[in-house]
Amino acid sequence: MDSFRDLGFARVDTDREARQGAPEAIVAEGKTPEEIRAIAAALIEADAGSVLVTRADAAARAALREVAPEAHEDDRARLAWVARHVPAAKGLVAIVSGGTSDEPVVREAQVRAELLGTNVIVHRDAGVAGLHRLEPALPDLKRADCVVVVAGWDAALASVVGGIVAAPVIAVPTSTGYGATFGGVSALLAMITSCAAGVAVVNIDDGFGAGTIAARIARQSAK
Amino acid sequence: MDSFRDLGFARVDTDREARQGAPEAIVAEGKTPEEIRAIAAALIEADAGSVLVTRADAAARAALREVAPEAHEDDRARLAWVARHVPAAKGLVAIVSGGTSDEPVVREAQVRAELLGTNVIVHRDAGVAGLHRLEPALPDLKRADCVVVVAGWDAALASVVGGIVAAPVIAVPTSTGYGATFGGVSALLAMITSCAAGVAVVNIDDGFGAGTIAARIARQSAK
Amino acid sequence: MDSFRDLGFARVDTDREARQGAPEAIVAEGKTPEEIRAIAAALIEADAGSVLVTRADAAARAALREVAPEAHEDDRARLAWVARHVPAAKGLVAIVSGGTSDEPVVREAQVRAELLGTNVIVHRDAGVAGLHRLEPALPDLKRADCVVVVAGWDAALASVVGGIVAAPVIAVPTSTGYGATFGGVSALLAMITSCAAGVAVVNIDDGFGAGTIAARIARQSAK
Amino acid sequence: MDSFRDLGFARVDTDREARQGAPEAIVAEGKTPEEIRAIAAALIEADAGSVLVTRADAAARAALREVAPEAHEDDRARLAWVARHVPAAKGLVAIVSGGTSDEPVVREAQVRAELLGTNVIVHRDAGVAGLHRLEPALPDLKRADCVVVVAGWDAALASVVGGIVAAPVIAVPTSTGYGATFGGVSALLAMITSCAAGVAVVNIDDGFGAGTIAARIARQSAK
Amino acid sequence: MDSFRDLGFARVDTDREARQGAPEAIVAEGKTPEEIRAIAAALIEADAGSVLVTRADAAARAALREVAPEAHEDDRARLAWVARHVPAAKGLVAIVSGGTSDEPVVREAQVRAELLGTNVIVHRDAGVAGLHRLEPALPDLKRADCVVVVAGWDAALASVVGGIVAAPVIAVPTSTGYGATFGGVSALLAMITSCAAGVAVVNIDDGFGAGTIAARIARQSAK
Amino acid sequence: MDSFRDLGFARVDTDREARQGAPEAIVAEGKTPEEIRAIAAALIEADAGSVLVTRADAAARAALREVAPEAHEDDRARLAWVARHVPAAKGLVAIVSGGTSDEPVVREAQVRAELLGTNVIVHRDAGVAGLHRLEPALPDLKRADCVVVVAGWDAALASVVGGIVAAPVIAVPTSTGYGATFGGVSALLAMITSCAAGVAVVNIDDGFGAGTIAARIARQSAK
Amino acid sequence: MDSFRDLGFARVDTDREARQGAPEAIVAEGKTPEEIRAIAAALIEADAGSVLVTRADAAARAALREVAPEAHEDDRARLAWVARHVPAAKGLVAIVSGGTSDEPVVREAQVRAELLGTNVIVHRDAGVAGLHRLEPALPDLKRADCVVVVAGWDAALASVVGGIVAAPVIAVPTSTGYGATFGGVSALLAMITSCAAGVAVVNIDDGFGAGTIAARIARQSAK
Amino acid sequence: MDSFRDLGFARVDTDREARQGAPEAIVAEGKTPEEIRAIAAALIEADAGSVLVTRADAAARAALREVAPEAHEDDRARLAWVARHVPAAKGLVAIVSGGTSDEPVVREAQVRAELLGTNVIVHRDAGVAGLHRLEPALPDLKRADCVVVVAGWDAALASVVGGIVAAPVIAVPTSTGYGATFGGVSALLAMITSCAAGVAVVNIDDGFGAGTIAARIARQSAK
Repeated sequence: MDSFRDLGFARVDTDREARQGAPEAIVAEGKTPEEIRAIAAALIEADAGSVLVTRADAAARAALREVAPEAHEDDRARLAWVARHVPAAKGLVAIVSGGTSDEPVVREAQVRAELLGTNVIVHRDAGVAGLHRLEPALPDLKRADCVVVVAGWDAALASVVGGIVAAPVIAVPTSTGYGATFGGVSALLAMITSCAAGVAVVNIDDGFGAGTIAARIARQSAK
Repeated sequence: MDSFRDLGFARVDTDREARQGAPEAIVAEGKTPEEIRAIAAALIEADAGSVLVTRADAAARAALREVAPEAHEDDRARLAWVARHVPAAKGLVAIVSGGTSDEPVVREAQVRAELLGTNVIVHRDAGVAGLHRLEPALPDLKRADCVVVVAGWDAALASVVGGIVAAPVIAVPTSTGYGATFGGVSALLAMITSCAAGVAVVNIDDGFGAGTIAARIARQSAK
Repeated sequence: MDSFRDLGFARVDTDREARQGAPEAIVAEGKTPEEIRAIAAALIEADAGSVLVTRADAAARAALREVAPEAHEDDRARLAWVARHVPAAKGLVAIVSGGTSDEPVVREAQVRAELLGTNVIVHRDAGVAGLHRLEPALPDLKRADCVVVVAGWDAALASVVGGIVAAPVIAVPTSTGYGATFGGVSALLAMITSCAAGVAVVNIDDGFGAGTIAARIARQSAK
Repeated sequence: MDSFRDLGFARVDTDREARQGAPEAIVAEGKTPEEIRAIAAALIEADAGSVLVTRADAAARAALREVAPEAHEDDRARLAWVARHVPAAKGLVAIVSGGTSDEPVVREAQVRAELLGTNVIVHRDAGVAGLHRLEPALPDLKRADCVVVVAGWDAALASVVGGIVAAPVIAVPTSTGYGATFGGVSALLAMITSCAAGVAVVNIDDGFGAGTIAARIARQSAK
Repeated sequence: MDSFRDLGFARVDTDREARQGAPEAIVAEGKTPEEIRAIAAALIEADAGSVLVTRADAAARAALREVAPEAHEDDRARLAWVARHVPAAKGLVAIVSGGTSDEPVVREAQVRAELLGTNVIVHRDAGVAGLHRLEPALPDLKRADCVVVVAGWDAALASVVGGIVAAPVIAVPTSTGYGATFGGVSALLAMITSCAAGVAVVNIDDGFGAGTIAARIARQSAK
Repeated sequence: MDSFRDLGFARVDTDREARQGAPEAIVAEGKTPEEIRAIAAALIEADAGSVLVTRADAAARAALREVAPEAHEDDRARLAWVARHVPAAKGLVAIVSGGTSDEPVVREAQVRAELLGTNVIVHRDAGVAGLHRLEPALPDLKRADCVVVVAGWDAALASVVGGIVAAPVIAVPTSTGYGATFGGVSALLAMITSCAAGVAVVNIDDGFGAGTIAARIARQSAK
Repeated sequence: MDSFRDLGFARVDTDREARQGAPEAIVAEGKTPEEIRAIAAALIEADAGSVLVTRADAAARAALREVAPEAHEDDRARLAWVARHVPAAKGLVAIVSGGTSDEPVVREAQVRAELLGTNVIVHRDAGVAGLHRLEPALPDLKRADCVVVVAGWDAALASVVGGIVAAPVIAVPTSTGYGATFGGVSALLAMITSCAAGVAVVNIDDGFGAGTIAARIARQSAK
Repeated sequence: MDSFRDLGFARVDTDREARQGAPEAIVAEGKTPEEIRAIAAALIEADAGSVLVTRADAAARAALREVAPEAHEDDRARLAWVARHVPAAKGLVAIVSGGTSDEPVVREAQVRAELLGTNVIVHRDAGVAGLHRLEPALPDLKRADCVVVVAGWDAALASVVGGIVAAPVIAVPTSTGYGATFGGVSALLAMITSCAAGVAVVNIDDGFGAGTIAARIARQSAK
């Protein structure tokens, strides 16, 4: 019963870092700034690890800064966070994105992975419409312990990378695009049916989830 | 013909409480404040029981207050209501939610159930990502006459609770989440295909419907 | 750890009747006759209550008979079952169906509810295309502790019944029909968006689930 | 080549009334006010019958008034129109709606049908959650040459009416409701799979289309 | 209570012809031959009009012949029927189909419409891929009281016809085609969003429904 | 009126080759062997060009051979055809497929294109899971007048090829794969949202359609 | 490695025009004005051909003008572009649209095709609801090297045109319409299942893609 | 060019094991036995590692045995395989399934993972409807380097496990269940929207893909 803090409107899982090596995060959407502030305060007070607020508008990010003035913010990625007791970085996650518009999701994955204690390297805008742009990324992709592919539209990049590297590949469909992209559904379907074996997929725009599993893989793989 | 009031734009079912033990409510979306005010006035004049306005923005809530200054309001839950001739509370409904963002739906269910004359107890933010948070709720869940599970995302909480309690379980999918939650569709599908028998489901975000059937079950089950 | 039997391919939940008042059932689809026979034997040996095999073809039903020669069978409903320690019937469930083709689902609900110890009365083929056919059923629907509506196509019967009775209504969409019925999806959507409050829905063709929750409601409601 | 006016951005079908007894209308969405004004002017100049602008915001409605100051407007229904050479009314269309929120669609159907020269009678808010509210409408529904049912949510009203009247029934699903109503999809599916024969369906929220076919049926049916 | 015959498994709506001018029909799918035979016998005994069995395999058709040896059969259209007291034909229904594969649906519509007492003329295989093939049909389409368009694939024929004729158009999407036709869904969507006003749609492959409403329109329109 | 042959059940578009340079073909599914034979005979008698029967089982193929004993057959691709007055081949179509299972669609495209008078070269099984397998195909892909990409699963090959070649690319999604491939839907969505510009898509498994447009492009492009 | 410019947030494919005859374009949605400006500057600096910004709001268009004051803008079509080294026009693309609301997509296709060096002629608002409006366009459609059909709603125009012309047809579904048009999905499905062979489809509202492939076809076809 | 074998109908990727540490496998569906035999022979001849045929009926499995009489077979899992040069097992994969019907997918994952050289332990039938059945599995789940969750229906097990373990979780939705399970779609959606971070998902029924990525994770994680 000590493993969570009951705020009435929230039961903050202060045990998660101890239990699973990764602290609970706060999805801001659907929560009031007051709730975000209180949850963040509870996590800090319980010394439950880093605090990360995702999908956070300005008010949500300000709520974190009220209880942690040292908090970092990223407007483009709609993030705010406080790094606390981040373990020494182990392992390498390589993130590769299909296009410039995937950037918010790339950063969410990067911040989360770094907070969990892993090294991250990013290659942006390497979509298959110009496959030669992927080449400079290949050495990093091949030496990484885990590769994260972030792509919208047809998400073909996931299959191309999945057919090259020997490391586990985590694919993140994004909601970039219009028309029959259906807010990321087409990318999700393409990634989940990838003809390359060894690719697993997280939710649309879920950089947070990708960063979590990628960091776990990379840390435990590091020599 | 006495069983409804014809306002031209609406045929107010003033008979519903007498017929079914639960008065008609007013979904504010799609109605003008004038219409809401007139329907509320007709229900009050016909002494047709409590008046509840759901999915109500500020203007809609103000419309109720014009004809019933004593009306209660809940901005977060987008509710306004007047309690009238509420029967003595019988039975117990236990509501458990998966996360803080499910709060508006929780409250809609709670208000509706209480207006129908039943006791309600709520446990919030007990999602399965930290299952130990569910434990303090178990005694209440086990002694309730009906359990309402309110959850978005993957809605796994409905199945977990449905595998534990002996009471009927009413599941309410919510539209919380992003990406492949599809506005509550994934939660709805998970709940309706729950591997736990004895779970029945209402519409996405439909706290009102859940409160209605839960109160009926609890009242008729009370010793 | 005594609460289930581990058969290697199955962990039979022998505790479910004690825990939740309703024993585990066996969905035959996807299991071999050998597996069904072994699971049934384990349930009988553990004295875990009645044994019900659903969605059972001839081979699956024969498997039950091998370990319980007294088992009942229903070819139309694809059921086989052995009644064991059925509690004295309490409460009344009224089932009403939209058409003749819904019969297999009706029977699955009826058998399950009776095995759980409640009285069941059935009115068949009362769909709204000829609403006068519903009238003879009304007295039973109004006196029941729980009403189960089984309907395919547009499933309008659920809303009509839901607008009449004061008891909780459990709606079962069926896969009857063709074209845009989409195997029961249209019925499911109509039931889940019913304009009548107090209706909750189970999976398409899930007579078993409906019988489970209906019996729970009826038994605890019985005077 | 005289049968349409080529404005460059539009080829106005000035022949439609002569050819099909019903003039072309203008869907305002996606058109600029300038385009609406020019199309309306061309229709008036060609004496091509009444001019009806649907789904029209204030600017779109003002555009019609510029070329036809006598134009009528309906803010709730987002309509503007000029009646021109409306034939003497023949036949009777009865419109019945499920709820108050269906009103914009009801009015669109009514205005269109009246402009085509038929009598229209409307019964509002007769949804099946309180079926007794339908009774006062029955005499009109039974004597009409065509019945139009306008309903959202589960749209069960279409089947109930379709099981009662002998006239052709045109069903209009509306986008009222929330959650699994999916913007009218559930209503559309319920109507198109109606268990009552003799019901045909138009697009979601398409009062215009319903008014068109209903008027055609009613006029040719009139004695 | 005299208005239906209760067979236990079915409540045969023997009143429908008197009430709505069109007798109940029997959808064979989901019913046993015994049930079909008994329902047919009840309809005949009650002198409830013609008996029509749709979606009937050989066994279902044989069931009708047992109680009505004079019954007609159509293997391609999966129909069996007995004509009884068919009213003198009034009005004209013109059916036009997009392709040869739509034939079963065409015939179902034709048989139903003729049994209800209207004249039917059919033009087959006039799809828009070769629009000149539609020309010979135009005089009939223009003089008909109601036009039924039966088409699968993209169902463009409905819009083309709907832009030409002044009579009401009933569109029947069919499940012909493969790939993204999705069993008739694409045809249904194209018809329901037809850019031609005055088109209303019935269920996929529902020749029966189309025949019903078309006959009603044609009979009441006949001079 | 000479431009088609009216067989009653079919209006054979004997004019299509003259009008559009590509004769009508016969989709066998949904047609009886008798109908196929009669349509084929009419096409031959009218000297309307080559006759191609697609999606043809053994009976359908035999029907063609009855009227044209010289007909070719392809069991794997479910094709039968008679080449008649095939124009001298002009231009080059290069077909590249993602996997061995796409073969039936590849052949349908090839046969159709060759019958229309173009040269076809095929590279099979070059899916991106092993992108180096695409390299030997590149010279042909780059010199072709039109490239056809046939792929199922995630269909990433279309984007890769679309990012390399300068010729128009026609993409054919296939129904190969299982699970979330949804019978070709995921491939269709990936192709239609391809991040490579200049890719256009035909129906799932529609080798015929791809062969038609590719041949047209190649023939008119040939120097 | 000279074939792209790495800006960190983007790898600008400066080689695309050389490689594929059509330069990379910039989809503005999801990019900041700063990113757009930098990408445009890189393309200009690398002399990589014309620069086209699509789906561009005012800020995005202003970003282009900052680096290229001579840029053209089109507010309705949400475009901005700079023509650079446009090849002498070869071949003819004919664009035909279904309605006035399709205009933004028409213009996007036209601008792209002209920038790639082909002649374009446009016929607007020729939807099949008034098919006679298509007639004046027929000579142009028949003489074009490639026909682009832009249509929303039921998109029947694609099939009608596809059944007439001998040139390749590229179909662009648009998101015009409401209700069951589902943002262009119904149009997409109708076009992809077109009963006319030789039609290939691009993404919803993707005038850019249509212009790209159409220009390629037209240029290589020109005599 | 030595990195694959071109059989004409297939380009066998003989390089994959060397390149990615996991050899190409053969999906039998859509391939003839002759093709399977030839591909298997090529892989063996090239000494390209183990050969695994998935989704293989009896004929497909026999094809492998012809070229490799020592091949193993699993009828339930529709597998056939030859183990060749399997590396010494490193790391531990724990597989946990929701029910007995998930067995074929469990085995496919197990065989694949073992062939890639990792240790596998399986816990079956631990679905959340009886959560206590999961407890005996917990020690293994917690010590594993990667956890694979195989579940159908609502797939709630993935979230429960995902909230407990610290290792990466790979979730495999299965097509078990009926009604609104939609062939595994509901399970897929629940898993991809899991409220537990660190869960990534593969295709429905894709034990092969799960085994591939799980083995990669486990092998590189092993101390």
